[in-house]
Amino acid sequence: MSIKNSNEFIKIFDTTLRDGEQTPGVSLTPNEKLEIAKQLDKLGVDVIEAGFPIVSKGEQEAIKLIVNEKLNSEICGLSRVEKHDIDAAIDCGLSYIHLFIATSDIHLKYKLKLTREEALQKALEAIDYAKAHGLKIEFSAEDATRSDLNFLKDFLKNIANAGVYMIDIPDTVGIMTPKRMYCLIKELKTTIDKPLSVHCHDDFGMAVANSLSAIEAGAIQAHVTINGLGERAGNAALEEFVSALHFLYGKKTRIKLQYIYETSKLVSRLTGVIVQPNKAIVGDNAFSHESGIHTHGVISMPFTYEPIEPELVGRKRYFQPGKHSGTHGILKELEEVGIHPTKEQLNEIVLRVKELGDKGKTVTDADLIAIAESIVGKTIKEKKIVDLVDLAVMTGIRVLPTASVKILLEGKEFVASEVGVGPVDAAIKAIQKLTDSLINVRLKEYRLEAVTGGSDAIAEVLIKVEDKDGNIVSARAAHEDVVMASVEAMIEGINKILIKRMKK
Amino acid sequence: MSIKNSNEFIKIFDTTLRDGEQTPGVSLTPNEKLEIAKQLDKLGVDVIEAGFPIVSKGEQEAIKLIVNEKLNSEICGLSRVEKHDIDAAIDCGLSYIHLFIATSDIHLKYKLKLTREEALQKALEAIDYAKAHGLKIEFSAEDATRSDLNFLKDFLKNIANAGVYMIDIPDTVGIMTPKRMYCLIKELKTTIDKPLSVHCHDDFGMAVANSLSAIEAGAIQAHVTINGLGERAGNAALEEFVSALHFLYGKKTRIKLQYIYETSKLVSRLTGVIVQPNKAIVGDNAFSHESGIHTHGVISMPFTYEPIEPELVGRKRYFQPGKHSGTHGILKELEEVGIHPTKEQLNEIVLRVKELGDKGKTVTDADLIAIAESIVGKTIKEKKIVDLVDLAVMTGIRVLPTASVKILLEGKEFVASEVGVGPVDAAIKAIQKLTDSLINVRLKEYRLEAVTGGSDAIAEVLIKVEDKDGNIVSARAAHEDVVMASVEAMIEGINKILIKRMKK
Repeated sequence: MSIKNSNEFIKIFDTTLRDGEQTPGVSLTPNEKLEIAKQLDKLGVDVIEAGFPIVSKGEQEAIKLIVNEKLNSEICGLSRVEKHDIDAAIDCGLSYIHLFIATSDIHLKYKLKLTREEALQKALEAIDYAKAHGLKIEFSAEDATRSDLNFLKDFLKNIANAGVYMIDIPDTVGIMTPKRMYCLIKELKTTIDKPLSVHCHDDFGMAVANSLSAIEAGAIQAHVTINGLGERAGNAALEEFVSALHFLYGKKTRIKLQYIYETSKLVSRLTGVIVQPNKAIVGDNAFSHESGIHTHGVISMPFTYEPIEPELVGRKRYFQPGKHSGTHGILKELEEVGIHPTKEQLNEIVLRVKELGDKGKTVTDADLIAIAESIVGKTIKEKKIVDLVDLAVMTGIRVLPTASVKILLEGKEFVASEVGVGPVDAAIKAIQKLTDSLINVRLKEYRLEAVTGGSDAIAEVLIKVEDKDGNIVSARAAHEDVVMASVEAMIEGINKILIKRMKK
Repeated sequence: MSIKNSNEFIKIFDTTLRDGEQTPGVSLTPNEKLEIAKQLDKLGVDVIEAGFPIVSKGEQEAIKLIVNEKLNSEICGLSRVEKHDIDAAIDCGLSYIHLFIATSDIHLKYKLKLTREEALQKALEAIDYAKAHGLKIEFSAEDATRSDLNFLKDFLKNIANAGVYMIDIPDTVGIMTPKRMYCLIKELKTTIDKPLSVHCHDDFGMAVANSLSAIEAGAIQAHVTINGLGERAGNAALEEFVSALHFLYGKKTRIKLQYIYETSKLVSRLTGVIVQPNKAIVGDNAFSHESGIHTHGVISMPFTYEPIEPELVGRKRYFQPGKHSGTHGILKELEEVGIHPTKEQLNEIVLRVKELGDKGKTVTDADLIAIAESIVGKTIKEKKIVDLVDLAVMTGIRVLPTASVKILLEGKEFVASEVGVGPVDAAIKAIQKLTDSLINVRLKEYRLEAVTGGSDAIAEVLIKVEDKDGNIVSARAAHEDVVMASVEAMIEGINKILIKRMKK
């Protein structure tokens, strides 16, 4: 269908800090909520739903912090059609409120225990109360998509006439299809003379498609969350909805697309909710290629296997070596690190990479370089000044966490052992015992990134080391064994600081 | 629109083992591919695309293993329109082949360097060759959705007349919308007299919606993958597509829905690709509830906030305590472990839970019980069912990470040792070795919060354990030694799940 008013901006109502925070297991401190709000403002969302004031004291504190920040985005808070909910919102300094009451019979009967008429009466009283306090009102008919259509139309007509600013249609349990959502919005537009918004849940994986369909039918706003967070399977993902609007529907929003990825990373880090690699736009693999056919295509011309330039949404293209790789992609990777194999050597490298893949191994760039080096017969890695030769670590109950370490420094071996509060601490202290006295290098900072998944997930350690001259170097290592990751990062950092010292 | 032929079965063509395995970083051994194929057969998929024979020797071995298993599902292999590709498929014992060549100008020009006519010629020759070898042929016009429509129609008419069994329409870079897909399939059906299939990618999060739209327009099959694996953002997720067909579109498939969740878990475990918690149908949170309003609703009547019964897709409902919790959900959780607070006590417990949430803490079941115990003044913890008596863990360079553990269970001591990828993994596996066989409790999820400061900073571990009945309990522990924190969380979780089980 043709899109009318294509020069208008579709409004982005972000509810990461409200419905998103209701993701089971997610809790944010007031300062974390503020940090996310500032990022959403930078991203350019029209509205930030900052929270549900009645929930807790911390929630109120967070909303006040965000309101006082005076961002460009409008700040909104959720409220039931209850005076004390509205009062809590007013206390937070909000001037924009998102009122809701359910309109489906199942919610009215089992949850609210109200008749349809009573629900309408309560809603109208709350609107009057909010209006009397000068609030801008957005109104949601919860579970609208399972409500009796005639009642819903009648109900919302009354709500519209009561003087709200916007009416939102929540698909509370995510049971809509794009076609049904299109028809519903079209139908509601025939009787309701207010701007319409939608709030879609992703229980069948169609929150984004349903939201887009509502826009096609004439809605002017959608409720979305970063990374599709929210109750159960979550809400429509901002990154997918906005990208589709821009690139597939020819619609505009005020979102600065280039900040999408950093926003996704920040929200994932602060909420602790991981983004799966095969997630559109923001997943690790969204712009990665492994198979030979795809890699070959993308090298010849990126658009063969990419819908958009990764940079438009703050991403970078990545070629993953592996069993499906062809020669084109692998050659390109090797040339980037200064390895130029002959055609025969290249074929041999590709074969070895495939063999590794057939064994079920994920092939890393380091694996690829190691294979290439062994075949081309050239070593491109810098000589290590300090090398870890041996390490033994133990811990347990009634076992003092202890580590022994042997390092090689300029051809000589040095051994030390230490105890610590745990195995990582003991190992770091043992290494430091040597490096501190021999070369004046000490650990300055240690950070272990959160590990999510299983007990065998990869741990990533970032460290900073410092020498007596105040040189500081940071290093990183990843390993399934948190002790090994810590030790490898430490050794890497020590080598870097020694190289740095030598170059001075 | 009305759905015609609603008593027909929509065909499910699963490509987890082909496009899914092309997920960057995923490699499966032949035996792992066989294990997944058997599970897909149990799940009831019509077709298993077992691989791309020309890719590697390991790939061919895997396909042969699967063909020889003589499953109920048909087995298919991918092939370019090249004789040696087809020969490789025949060598694997395949009798069903999935031939493809691109039809978009961008692919023809930059990747294949063929004219439209040359591409058609190659395709027809390959079809003749495959037919001469008695193969059943499914044909894909790669990048169909970006191909010139008139050329595509003409091309596919020729392909259809050449005697293929099915024609597949790939949305190779995921740029379709439900409406455009509907129109395309309708249009193609006017000229092509063969069954149509679709193969959708999820670059804008609409693979499932687009696939469903194709079915509405008359396609009879979709290519899908478990967990939506596949190139870049992946393919349409089987679990979402099939659930939507059954519950929203009134269509049937041969999928046994109750095996969806176990299939998702198996594929995630073998591929190493995690499923995000807020993933529809199979994500951890898809049937979890935290907020007070939702929990209250679901306790009164599950359908208030659930689109379907979780058990239909092999899931269980879970209530997560937290800052958004209300009194109803918390009371229900406490009663399940035998704590019956007064109304005043309950209000105090809820307040304390919210305070913990406001501090940014994920509230575990164990936290909730500890808070309740301190307020109700009753200790249900005293009697630890499982106690950790001894633990010894070692790791290092050329040291296999190993753990020995002794636990006390109902007065008896049990000892086990295990190796792992690191000391934490070894310790968890050693405990699990005992609890899995003795009381059917396994680790479901492990999360180590980020550690910042020094190597002696406190590590905080959150775990979820699950028993064979699907009971899930979360627990937390903090310790300077990451191994001890992990082990203590695990023991705490095991005790809580046993208490829960005893009360039921």
